[in-house]
Amino acid sequence: MKKPSKTVKIGSMTLGGSGFAVIAGPCSVESREQFQTTAQWVKKHGAQALRGGLFKLRTDPSSFQGLGEDAYKLAFSVKSETNLPFISEITDPRQVSDLEEVVDAFQVGSRNMHNYALLKELGQSRKPILLKRGLAALYKEWILAAEHISKWGNDQIVLCERGIRTFETSTRNTFDLNSVALAKRDTPYPVLADPSHGTGDASLVIPMSLAAAAAGADGLLIEVHPDPKTALSDGFQSLNFKQFEDLMSRLNRILPALQRDLQ
Amino acid sequence: MKKPSKTVKIGSMTLGGSGFAVIAGPCSVESREQFQTTAQWVKKHGAQALRGGLFKLRTDPSSFQGLGEDAYKLAFSVKSETNLPFISEITDPRQVSDLEEVVDAFQVGSRNMHNYALLKELGQSRKPILLKRGLAALYKEWILAAEHISKWGNDQIVLCERGIRTFETSTRNTFDLNSVALAKRDTPYPVLADPSHGTGDASLVIPMSLAAAAAGADGLLIEVHPDPKTALSDGFQSLNFKQFEDLMSRLNRILPALQRDLQ
Amino acid sequence: MKKPSKTVKIGSMTLGGSGFAVIAGPCSVESREQFQTTAQWVKKHGAQALRGGLFKLRTDPSSFQGLGEDAYKLAFSVKSETNLPFISEITDPRQVSDLEEVVDAFQVGSRNMHNYALLKELGQSRKPILLKRGLAALYKEWILAAEHISKWGNDQIVLCERGIRTFETSTRNTFDLNSVALAKRDTPYPVLADPSHGTGDASLVIPMSLAAAAAGADGLLIEVHPDPKTALSDGFQSLNFKQFEDLMSRLNRILPALQRDLQ
Amino acid sequence: MKKPSKTVKIGSMTLGGSGFAVIAGPCSVESREQFQTTAQWVKKHGAQALRGGLFKLRTDPSSFQGLGEDAYKLAFSVKSETNLPFISEITDPRQVSDLEEVVDAFQVGSRNMHNYALLKELGQSRKPILLKRGLAALYKEWILAAEHISKWGNDQIVLCERGIRTFETSTRNTFDLNSVALAKRDTPYPVLADPSHGTGDASLVIPMSLAAAAAGADGLLIEVHPDPKTALSDGFQSLNFKQFEDLMSRLNRILPALQRDLQ
Repeated sequence: MKKPSKTVKIGSMTLGGSGFAVIAGPCSVESREQFQTTAQWVKKHGAQALRGGLFKLRTDPSSFQGLGEDAYKLAFSVKSETNLPFISEITDPRQVSDLEEVVDAFQVGSRNMHNYALLKELGQSRKPILLKRGLAALYKEWILAAEHISKWGNDQIVLCERGIRTFETSTRNTFDLNSVALAKRDTPYPVLADPSHGTGDASLVIPMSLAAAAAGADGLLIEVHPDPKTALSDGFQSLNFKQFEDLMSRLNRILPALQRDLQ
Repeated sequence: MKKPSKTVKIGSMTLGGSGFAVIAGPCSVESREQFQTTAQWVKKHGAQALRGGLFKLRTDPSSFQGLGEDAYKLAFSVKSETNLPFISEITDPRQVSDLEEVVDAFQVGSRNMHNYALLKELGQSRKPILLKRGLAALYKEWILAAEHISKWGNDQIVLCERGIRTFETSTRNTFDLNSVALAKRDTPYPVLADPSHGTGDASLVIPMSLAAAAAGADGLLIEVHPDPKTALSDGFQSLNFKQFEDLMSRLNRILPALQRDLQ
Repeated sequence: MKKPSKTVKIGSMTLGGSGFAVIAGPCSVESREQFQTTAQWVKKHGAQALRGGLFKLRTDPSSFQGLGEDAYKLAFSVKSETNLPFISEITDPRQVSDLEEVVDAFQVGSRNMHNYALLKELGQSRKPILLKRGLAALYKEWILAAEHISKWGNDQIVLCERGIRTFETSTRNTFDLNSVALAKRDTPYPVLADPSHGTGDASLVIPMSLAAAAAGADGLLIEVHPDPKTALSDGFQSLNFKQFEDLMSRLNRILPALQRDLQ
Repeated sequence: MKKPSKTVKIGSMTLGGSGFAVIAGPCSVESREQFQTTAQWVKKHGAQALRGGLFKLRTDPSSFQGLGEDAYKLAFSVKSETNLPFISEITDPRQVSDLEEVVDAFQVGSRNMHNYALLKELGQSRKPILLKRGLAALYKEWILAAEHISKWGNDQIVLCERGIRTFETSTRNTFDLNSVALAKRDTPYPVLADPSHGTGDASLVIPMSLAAAAAGADGLLIEVHPDPKTALSDGFQSLNFKQFEDLMSRLNRILPALQRDLQ
C-alpha cells in the first residue's frame, strides 16, 4: 500500500504538489562571477532554486575537486542576493554541521547513496534531503536508502533519478524514467529528474527534460553554465544561458497539458 | 552529418512528419472476435494502424506461439473492414513472400535485430520495415542493423525503441528514451517507441507514452486487449479499452504543446 | 532435479565425460593455406576438433562476411586431411541441408540464440548442436533455448559460454564463468567455454582458459590464426601458433589436478 | 606501462608474491564462540588471515548491522589467540583511529569504493587497504580509486574483485575474473578474489575459487560459518567447516600446477 503523497518544502519552494520545480545552476561553483550571473539568469527565467557543487566527487583524483569550504561564504551571499533556496551535495558525514548553515537542502550524490554513515547523519538533520539514485542501484535499494534516512527521524526526503549505468555508451548514462513513474505510483516522496546527468549531453537535455515532466516528475535538476566549454566539470552536459531560456519556454508550453505549472 | 529526415508511409499512415502516429492492437491475434473488437475500438479512439502478432517468439518453448498462418485470412479481413494498415512481426526469412500479402509493414522483433539472414531478405522486399532495437543492442548496432536492410535496396525503415535489458528488475525492461532523442537527432529515420514492452506494466504505459512523445518520438506501438487478464501473451502490459481511451485523450492534450497532432 | 549428465559425441571427440576437449581454429576460414596450416598446428598440439567460420555475422554490413558456400569444399578437404571433426556456425535455417554435409556439429552463435526458426530446424537435424549463450541472455533463457532444440527431437546439445554484455568495456565481454559452474551443477549438458570471445583479448585467453577449466568446463573453443594481425576478423582475440602451444602446455599441467585430461 | 609488481604484507601474510593466500572467516562476527571456532578451523586448514565484519552495511535498514565497537575486544582476543592477522571493513572515516588498533588491514567494501572521504582518510593510515571493486565500477574506476588512496601516501593497496551487477540474476553477482587477469597484467597491486560474494551461492564457491586461482589471483577471501543456516548475514554464500576443508584440499592440488603454493 502506498502511503499518502507528501510535499517537501525547501525554503520557498514546494516539491510534490501540483507545481513543477526547476532547480538550476552550475555543476561546480567556480567563482563569484560564474555563480552569480548563473543564479541571476536562471532566476529570471523561472528557476525556483539554485544548485551548485562545493565538494565534487571525481573519479580521477587529479580532477578539480570543488572549492570546498572556501566557497561557503560565496554561495551564501549569492543565495541571499537572489533570495532562492540553495541545494548542494554533501560528501562526508563530518560536513553536516557547517554545511547546514549554507544550504537549504542536502543533496546525496549517486556515489553516496549506499553511504549509510552519511545517511544516518542526515537522518538527524532537520534539512530536507535530495537523494539521488545510485548509478547501479535497484529501484528497491533506492527506496530502502530513503528509509535509512527516515528511520533516524528526517522524513523530508526527495528522490532524484539521474541515470543508471548500463551497457549503452552512446549516452553517459541510461536515463531511467520508468523509475520516476514507478516512484510516483508507489512511494509518498516527491520525485525529481536530472537530465543533465541522465543524458550527459547538453543537446539531449531539452527533450529529456520534457520527457521527465511527462513521465510525472515533480521537477528537474539542471546544470547551467555561462560558458560550458570552459567549465571546470561536466561542461559537456551543461546548458548555456540561451539553451536554459529555451528549455523554460518549452516547459511552460507543455506543463499546462500535464495539469502542472511552474508556479 | 545527419542525412535529411525522411518520412515513411505505411498504407494511409505517414511516419516521421509533423503528425504523431499510434499503432495499436493485441500482442497476439487470438481469435476473430478478439482482434475485431480491439481493432474497432482503437480505430474509434484515434489509432492510425493495427498491430497484432501472428508468429510469437517465446522464450519458453511450451508457451503459446501464435496462430501462425492460420490467422492470415482473419488478419486480412479485420484489416480490410477497418481500413487500417496492419503491421505484424516476421520471424523467419521463409515467411516473406506469404506474409507480404497480409501486412502493410514487417516488424522485426527485438530477438531478431541481429538476424542478418532475415534482414537481408527484408532488404529485398518493397514493404516498410519496423525495426525494433535488440534487447541488448548498442544504439550504434541498431543503426547498423538498419544499414543491413538498406544496403539491399529497401530504405523504408522505421526504428522502434522497446526497452533494453539492464540490472533493474522492477520493470520488465529499462525504457531508453535517450535513444529516441538520439536517433531523432542523428538519423534520417522515423522513430517509434513501444511503452508496453518498455515498461512491461500496464499501469506505467500512459505516463511513459507521454514521456516518449515529449522525448521526440514520431509515434507509439501500444498493446491493447479486450480483457488483459485472459490474454494468451503479455496481458500484464496490455491496456484495456478504457485505459486506451484515456491514453488517447491525454495524448491529444499534450501533442499540441509539442507542435504535433494525431492527424 | 538435475537429469543425469550425458555425453555428446562430435565425430571422434566426446564432450561431457572425464576428458577435456579443445576445439581450435580460425575465426573465419580465409584461404586453404590459412585453414590448413592452422588445422595442422592445432592438431599437433592436442586439439581434438576444428572450428572455422564460413558464414560470419558482422554488426557492420561492410565487414568481411565469410567465404560462405565457396569454402564448403575447402573446409571439407582440410577436415578430411587432419581427420578431425569440424564445427562451424549456421546462420540461416535454409543452410541446414547443405552445411550438414560439411560439418560434424552446428554452432549456433550468440546473435542467433533466440532465433527460434533456426533452432527448430536444428532440432530436426541429427548433428550435435553447440549452443552459444546470447550476449544478453539470462542463464535461464539459455537453458530454455536448448529446450527449443530438444523438443524437436535432437538432444545432442552442448552449451557454450562466450561472455555477456555488461557495463564493463575494458574487455570485449564479461566472461561469466559462474554460468559454467551453474550449468554443470544443474543441467545434463556438456558445457564449453570460449575465452576468445569471453575476453576479446589474446593476452587474456591463456589465464581465462585455465580459469574456465577450473570452473568445471568440459572444454574450450579457441581462436587461432597464423598471423593474427592480418586476420580478416577478430584478430585481436586470436592466439598465434606459439601462444596456442603455450596454452596447451599449461592446460596439460593443470588438468590432472582437476582430475581431467586432454585424452 | 605497468609499474613493477609489488608485494603487500598484512601481518605475517605476504600478498602478491609466489605464494597464494586464503583469508577466511564469517561474514559478521556474531559472538565469541562463533568467531573463535571459525578462526581455529580455518587456521588449522591453511588460512593465513582472518576476516570478519564488525560494521555491516545492509541495504535494508532493519537487517542486522554488525556488533560494531562492542566486538573490538572480542575480535582482538581471537586474533591474538590464533596469531593470525585480522581484516575487517571500515564504513566511516571517523572509525579509522579506533579500528586501527584492532585490524591489520582495512577493507573498503563494494558500496564504499567511491566514498572518497573514506579513501582520503585511509590514504593517511599506515595499515594496508584491501580495496573491493564497486558493484558497478568500471575496471578503470577501480584502479583510479586505488590512486585516491595512494595520492595521500599509503601505497599498501590490495585489489579485490567481488562480482559486479549485471542483468543476470541466477547468481547474486557476475564474478568478473577477466578483471583479475587484467589487473594482474596491468597494475602493480596484488589482486584477490571473493567468490563468496562473486557467486552468492555456497555450492559455487569451490569451483569459482579454483577458477580465480587459475585466472591469476594472489589469494581468496572466503566466508565460513559454523552453521550457515543460522548466520545473521549472508549464510547462503558461506561455506560450512566441511566445505572449507574440501576447498583447501582442492586448492592444494591445483596450486602447484599454477606454480604457486599456500606457503
